[in-house]
Amino acid sequence: MPNIKNLKRIAISSLLASVLSVSTYAESPVISQSQIETAENLMQAALESKLGFEIVESLTTEIGPRLAGSEAEKRARDWGFKLGKELGFDKVSIEEFTMPFWDRGELHIALQSPYQQELYGTALGGAAPSKSLIKAPVVYFRDIEALKEVASGDLKNKIAFIDGDIMVKSQTGAGYGQASQRRRVGWQHAERGGAKALIVRSAGSSSHRFPHTGMMSKDADNADKWSDIPVIAISIPDADHLRRLHNLGKPLSVSLHSASKWKGEVSSGNVIMDLVGSEKPEEIVLIGGHLDSWDLGTGAVDDGAGVAITTAAAALIAKLPKRPKRTIRVVMFGAEEVGLLGARAYAKKHETNLKNHVLATESDFGAQTIWQLVSDVNAEANPLIDEIAHVIRPLDIVRGSSQAPGGGPDIIPLAMAGVPTIRLKQNGRDYFDLHHTPDDTLDKIDPKELAQNVAAYAAAIYLAADSDVEFRKPVEDKAAK
Amino acid sequence: MPNIKNLKRIAISSLLASVLSVSTYAESPVISQSQIETAENLMQAALESKLGFEIVESLTTEIGPRLAGSEAEKRARDWGFKLGKELGFDKVSIEEFTMPFWDRGELHIALQSPYQQELYGTALGGAAPSKSLIKAPVVYFRDIEALKEVASGDLKNKIAFIDGDIMVKSQTGAGYGQASQRRRVGWQHAERGGAKALIVRSAGSSSHRFPHTGMMSKDADNADKWSDIPVIAISIPDADHLRRLHNLGKPLSVSLHSASKWKGEVSSGNVIMDLVGSEKPEEIVLIGGHLDSWDLGTGAVDDGAGVAITTAAAALIAKLPKRPKRTIRVVMFGAEEVGLLGARAYAKKHETNLKNHVLATESDFGAQTIWQLVSDVNAEANPLIDEIAHVIRPLDIVRGSSQAPGGGPDIIPLAMAGVPTIRLKQNGRDYFDLHHTPDDTLDKIDPKELAQNVAAYAAAIYLAADSDVEFRKPVEDKAAK
Repeated sequence: MPNIKNLKRIAISSLLASVLSVSTYAESPVISQSQIETAENLMQAALESKLGFEIVESLTTEIGPRLAGSEAEKRARDWGFKLGKELGFDKVSIEEFTMPFWDRGELHIALQSPYQQELYGTALGGAAPSKSLIKAPVVYFRDIEALKEVASGDLKNKIAFIDGDIMVKSQTGAGYGQASQRRRVGWQHAERGGAKALIVRSAGSSSHRFPHTGMMSKDADNADKWSDIPVIAISIPDADHLRRLHNLGKPLSVSLHSASKWKGEVSSGNVIMDLVGSEKPEEIVLIGGHLDSWDLGTGAVDDGAGVAITTAAAALIAKLPKRPKRTIRVVMFGAEEVGLLGARAYAKKHETNLKNHVLATESDFGAQTIWQLVSDVNAEANPLIDEIAHVIRPLDIVRGSSQAPGGGPDIIPLAMAGVPTIRLKQNGRDYFDLHHTPDDTLDKIDPKELAQNVAAYAAAIYLAADSDVEFRKPVEDKAAK
Repeated sequence: MPNIKNLKRIAISSLLASVLSVSTYAESPVISQSQIETAENLMQAALESKLGFEIVESLTTEIGPRLAGSEAEKRARDWGFKLGKELGFDKVSIEEFTMPFWDRGELHIALQSPYQQELYGTALGGAAPSKSLIKAPVVYFRDIEALKEVASGDLKNKIAFIDGDIMVKSQTGAGYGQASQRRRVGWQHAERGGAKALIVRSAGSSSHRFPHTGMMSKDADNADKWSDIPVIAISIPDADHLRRLHNLGKPLSVSLHSASKWKGEVSSGNVIMDLVGSEKPEEIVLIGGHLDSWDLGTGAVDDGAGVAITTAAAALIAKLPKRPKRTIRVVMFGAEEVGLLGARAYAKKHETNLKNHVLATESDFGAQTIWQLVSDVNAEANPLIDEIAHVIRPLDIVRGSSQAPGGGPDIIPLAMAGVPTIRLKQNGRDYFDLHHTPDDTLDKIDPKELAQNVAAYAAAIYLAADSDVEFRKPVEDKAAK
């Protein structure tokens, strides 16, 4: 657990100062001078605090990897509950739900022809086990589009390999959707072809010899259907190796044995931590990250960082002499990686109260600095979002689109139910070098970059929660329930 | 195999040009203007050629990892023999020798207390197997010096873990000797303490989740004694993780099962490829790299690059209209990683002829650019080495010490027998991020940096081989046999 003894109380600007000052924001009555100064104090405190880093250090060290539905994820919930109490949240609870458990198990995969060589691979989420050792010739597909052309039965007694290109790196991570297509839907085409197993070039941008895991997508035409065959991602250098051998005209064969499988229903849960609003306690500003991680690394950037950033931001706000007007709720979502299961469970459990969720956002894009604030709220509230952007501008954050729905993966079910969202967008250029790989470990986080995130969240969430501005869209808007 | 069809013949400066030109090197009669121009043509050809990269691509792709004594190393020798013939060497041969074979086998290692977590580890070269699954409490040692203090029997029924600091990165790789101490001699102290196994923080500078393999050292007092216990290196992020848990006061326990073991005598060998000298064929300028690699990666930077650089340099010289005066010999040494076994076998087999080895050097420090030329030759020959440095100066290479014994790992037995050496020192700053890890793969080599190496070797070796200058020290020098 982080040492919170040294966390100082944060000064709130005196009412007098706010009344007497000639505000530089006099033209924007949506935020008072007093609120601005409090937000600035929060930012300063966040930049000087180590709390965010201490939280992610504690989570990754004391709990370790936290596969959805595992015993470790349960320990993480208990850790989160205890942390919330220690940090002074007014209400802390755990909301459990059930889910099907997929276990990675052990994998052996090796090139057998033209010679024997171990490959660095991992099973993809949802994949079936091999019943016994599979050894078969490899049929090479340059990309997922090529595999889609395969006729039924063409891959009988074969292993399909989907190659592809290394993902394009960008600040927004825009290349990932394309790169992860082969991971998501490749199995459906390999099965149609009759393949005994599928191997895919890892999604992600890492040039290191790590496979990149992640869930496959269910069959679009049969929502209960997962793969009946093993599906294995191999590292990018290994995929390059197979490509070069293929291009030399060498017949390839591979052996593999994978124990990955579904293991029935287990418990997961969300940790809910509230700072109860001083004037409108029923109105909820929801922030959070997800507590589960893939099991290959220790889930530092995905998403220990998000849990730490949002928890630390709220903990700093908790040190103010007075609670903001609205309730600030931090949710540590369970089971995000396997299909937003915690987010769906939350939306269902709170279904009748979603109308009181006035704003929601999640941090789930690593630990590098935030560079942009985007939003999707009532048009009347845009001046407030603009003012929030103005206040956090010294953190090198620009105002982006006011028509950017989303708010983070776990916010999707809320956003679909009409909850307004913002997003503090992080620089994701290096995120896909780490996320879903064994390399997602604490040492990859820069404490200063993390602190910039905490500062932005603390200021933005404080200002949103201490406001009377209505973020919710008018009820005639069909998106709102 | 590389495509050598497009390798052009290299122009040699006409005798006329050399006679008529007002040489800018008129003050240095040790190299003629004609030789300088030939060396410059060789450098230009090397920078324009892809041969070096094609050779390392061929070796790593068509052969793969090449553990000393393995079937793969045998395939590599056959590959080298065929390559030497294709590239136009005058004599190509394989000299076999026998050696004890150490096999890595499979390893499972996991943290068990305070919770279960897989660790990323690998057995160290020479380590014994676990007879069965070992599960034991971990005793933490901050560094190798702390373990040296342990009393006999103090580690009974325990697993020792040697932590340490990440190695200091430098152009010369100077931090590696210190960082690898725990790998080399740690087992001797762990055994004395009665430990069931030893875990060490990986040597090397990689921040990625790869263990770093390498040979242990034999017992200084008992040259036939290898470890009786499993010895496992874990990745630096894993070692950080254990350190943090230890610092939190958590009792640690680990389970491990390792199949690594010695498996008796096998064959290895050196590939010898000669460009026979046109005037003094009995005098040998020896260059080379080592053909074996550790088995975790594909041995691209260690030492596919060295094999490729020296072979490509000699192949360019082979395209000159006339052979240099002295013989240029490229040796692809076998079994370097496990104790310079190929180098020792070479020195023994050629013992009576070492007096005719007039100069030797090896490329075995990765694939980044060369920045310095150092030497250890007859003082009378220093002006020639200085002139060689002058010629290769446009490649951004400076002249270093003229009293730097060595010449590369596989040159040590020759240097100890009095063979003069030079070394074209590479920038090794990033070398220890890759070497001895699974990440030592082809994609880590920049073809342009590799070509700079080929250019430097081609020019320097041509000039040394086409010279009459005596590199050998006078016989009264005790170092010379």
